[in-house]
Amino acid sequence: MKFCSNCGARVVRRVPPGDTHERHVCDACDTVHYSNPKMVLGCIPEWEDQVLLCRRAIEPRYGKWTLPAGFMEDDETTAEAAMRETLEEAGARVELGEIYTVLSVRHVNQVHIFYRARLLDLGFSAGTESLEVALFREHEVPWTELAFRTVSTTLRHFYADRREGVYRLHAGEIPLRPAG
Amino acid sequence: MKFCSNCGARVVRRVPPGDTHERHVCDACDTVHYSNPKMVLGCIPEWEDQVLLCRRAIEPRYGKWTLPAGFMEDDETTAEAAMRETLEEAGARVELGEIYTVLSVRHVNQVHIFYRARLLDLGFSAGTESLEVALFREHEVPWTELAFRTVSTTLRHFYADRREGVYRLHAGEIPLRPAG
Repeated sequence: MKFCSNCGARVVRRVPPGDTHERHVCDACDTVHYSNPKMVLGCIPEWEDQVLLCRRAIEPRYGKWTLPAGFMEDDETTAEAAMRETLEEAGARVELGEIYTVLSVRHVNQVHIFYRARLLDLGFSAGTESLEVALFREHEVPWTELAFRTVSTTLRHFYADRREGVYRLHAGEIPLRPAG
Repeated sequence: MKFCSNCGARVVRRVPPGDTHERHVCDACDTVHYSNPKMVLGCIPEWEDQVLLCRRAIEPRYGKWTLPAGFMEDDETTAEAAMRETLEEAGARVELGEIYTVLSVRHVNQVHIFYRARLLDLGFSAGTESLEVALFREHEVPWTELAFRTVSTTLRHFYADRREGVYRLHAGEIPLRPAG
């Protein structure tokens, strides 16, 4: 942010009175501009012992595999966002279950939330943001070709819980990858 | 948003090519500006059979009671945000438990997440955003003086689950209040 979205003047970076964080502040119209993490909503669409994955047709991670997920929009709920992204990216209709993972990704200011979900039919097809969409059994999952660590973390929890026969909420953080 | 935060030109409202939603678009520098829901993080600080509430010293809902909670900042995790808000508003140190409620509030573009938490000591005190901070047993909770429906919803689930002896994640939506 270089200019005030309210009046168009240049903004400065400073801690406003009574605040604890540096913000973009406009001295022309006295507006404080806040920046907050964005939410990414998705799901694990299950069909019998298989899970639906999408191969990305967009950057970042073009060509890598992901669970259907994307940025939550204004004017929707977390559940609606997860279902919309699944329909947009995979052409897939799901019935959502419980929230399964809540993963903070501090270094990109995001929180990723994945629901468990039941795929309602096999009439899925790649949306404009996907190269292909396919069902995978556990031993078929392309672990080294997954797009995001929130996806691999969610899938690892999923298969571990499935082996134990009990699914529970997993909340946590994806740490910054060590340099080198 | 009236002006582009990147170049200061006036923005227009339109659906960009390949998009499905109206956005603020800058034709001068070709920037699309996205708006996404904000996250509010808080907790239910428990001490024996009591819960810690704060009476708000700020608008909205000046003078009403709330669980400690506030906007998640960039560069933190959901857990850190919940603990920071609890320290800022109530001067209270907590050990977080599980995520307990995930409540979408569509009409204000927010998602509120509350953790269960154990108050570590009784050395709490009102922060600058609170008039007072106090512990409440269930029959003492000021139900008609609660600040937000995400707070009353979270507390209702909490006491219902406590009676059943099993706490589980509650996800859902706070609907727009019917007019009239």
